[in-house]
Amino acid sequence: MNIGLIGLGKMGRNLAFNLMDHNHHVVGYDANRSIGENIAHENFSLADSLKELTNQLATPRVIWLMVPAGNITEKVIQEVSPHLDKGDSIIDGGNSNYKDTLNRNKILSEQGIYFFDCGTSGGMEGARNGACTMIGGNAEKFTQIEQLFSDISVENGYLYTGETGSGHFLKMVHNGMEYGMMQSIAEGFEILDKSEFNYDYEKVAKVFNHGSVIRSWLMELVENAFSKDANLEQIRGIMHSSGEGKWTVESAIDLQVAAPVIALSLMMRYRSLENDTFSGKVVAALRNEFGGHETVKK
Amino acid sequence: MNIGLIGLGKMGRNLAFNLMDHNHHVVGYDANRSIGENIAHENFSLADSLKELTNQLATPRVIWLMVPAGNITEKVIQEVSPHLDKGDSIIDGGNSNYKDTLNRNKILSEQGIYFFDCGTSGGMEGARNGACTMIGGNAEKFTQIEQLFSDISVENGYLYTGETGSGHFLKMVHNGMEYGMMQSIAEGFEILDKSEFNYDYEKVAKVFNHGSVIRSWLMELVENAFSKDANLEQIRGIMHSSGEGKWTVESAIDLQVAAPVIALSLMMRYRSLENDTFSGKVVAALRNEFGGHETVKK
Repeated sequence: MNIGLIGLGKMGRNLAFNLMDHNHHVVGYDANRSIGENIAHENFSLADSLKELTNQLATPRVIWLMVPAGNITEKVIQEVSPHLDKGDSIIDGGNSNYKDTLNRNKILSEQGIYFFDCGTSGGMEGARNGACTMIGGNAEKFTQIEQLFSDISVENGYLYTGETGSGHFLKMVHNGMEYGMMQSIAEGFEILDKSEFNYDYEKVAKVFNHGSVIRSWLMELVENAFSKDANLEQIRGIMHSSGEGKWTVESAIDLQVAAPVIALSLMMRYRSLENDTFSGKVVAALRNEFGGHETVKK
Repeated sequence: MNIGLIGLGKMGRNLAFNLMDHNHHVVGYDANRSIGENIAHENFSLADSLKELTNQLATPRVIWLMVPAGNITEKVIQEVSPHLDKGDSIIDGGNSNYKDTLNRNKILSEQGIYFFDCGTSGGMEGARNGACTMIGGNAEKFTQIEQLFSDISVENGYLYTGETGSGHFLKMVHNGMEYGMMQSIAEGFEILDKSEFNYDYEKVAKVFNHGSVIRSWLMELVENAFSKDANLEQIRGIMHSSGEGKWTVESAIDLQVAAPVIALSLMMRYRSLENDTFSGKVVAALRNEFGGHETVKK
């Protein structure tokens, strides 16, 4: 198959090679042309513009977006869609908010363009050697491009999830689960760290990965991290987040689902971004007011 | 090796066969004799009493306990230890509280008996075909019985964790992590369930297990559960617990570790045990008091 691939960063580049491994021809484009110039492969050609990219593809075109969610995805879709014809397909492989996906689908479907939301998990390694993909969109059209997902995913690693939005929604919730699982694993290691015992965390993670109930890829990644830095002394415990956890909590609230652990995992990330907190000052001030307990002065 | 195995229930029975697979001879005992009578194996002999069990073992004896934590473990240790000699070893393979383990070790070590705390993970399947074990106790004596753990565990699935108590403490924290991971996975599925999309949960869990970041044994078990009952309609969401999560939270509090996700996972289990809550009544009554909001009458 000929595929247009927009976005040749860490994920897009790996996806390009994954696609080419499966004998697909990739026409690539990145706003930063030099990124694409580093891809040398007989099945790869680099386009200078979105217009040129669409010109190089026979109809019905299939265009895969692997660009950051939000404004960039929006901008790319707005810029590329005028160059597309009825029956073409756009696959959004990024972590877009499913509500944006629903809006975009509405607009694109009026133009006769099929829009697929493809949640992609497995990180950079997955994009390169076999990802996990969950795809929403038109069921009939999906069968025409299904082979693509089958090719770039690990065995049994792709799922058609139903109507538009269901792929990104599922990936969002997947990431929400991930927040809670990570926080729980992390809290456990902190309890070990403050305990009276002396554990080798790499060995602990390793034994947990061999036969225990909590064996998991996340535990393997923790093992890997401890193998490089036994007590993680080289990094700070600042936990950034990139949207999906927040959206999962927003969805839980919209749907009135009690999801306290996922919500709290998100808020512990927010807490980690602050050296000091206003809430802490309020509690310290209150203890001082009613009980004369000393505050720690700045 | 000849091993005395006390407790021939689901876990003990599976452990017996696992040990015998590795050419160990097992002298078994269970307070309920009929349970032991069902084990027919050339490497198995059933003892009628704890005294007879100790008589059938050459010194230095190795006795493995696979009985419920708490009173039963305490009772068995008190009853069997008078029949033991200096240099014998007791392995507690149950989920004992590590504080009990420390106390027991103090008493047993005064009698010259080695006490090993062996946290065991992997469920019944692990006990039968390869568990994950984490063992605390005397380092030198450990080397003499290490082969046992190597034999009954999966490859790389056992770890000597250091001084007495460190094995049960680690297993306790492992279970605490498990609570949070399970709650997080569960909340995610509830968000999917209340969403506007229609997911096949078995397929969702299956795709998550193939290449995604949250692939894990717990997700495989969820997949398995959904394969038997697509929407879990045959069971109620009552989440019992058996101690380790509570102890993990108690330890976090003792050690002043912020572990909110594990703590909340435990409390969501408590919440699930109640049809109605007093706290709910208090909030409803307060809303009525200040705002005249109607309460739901009993």
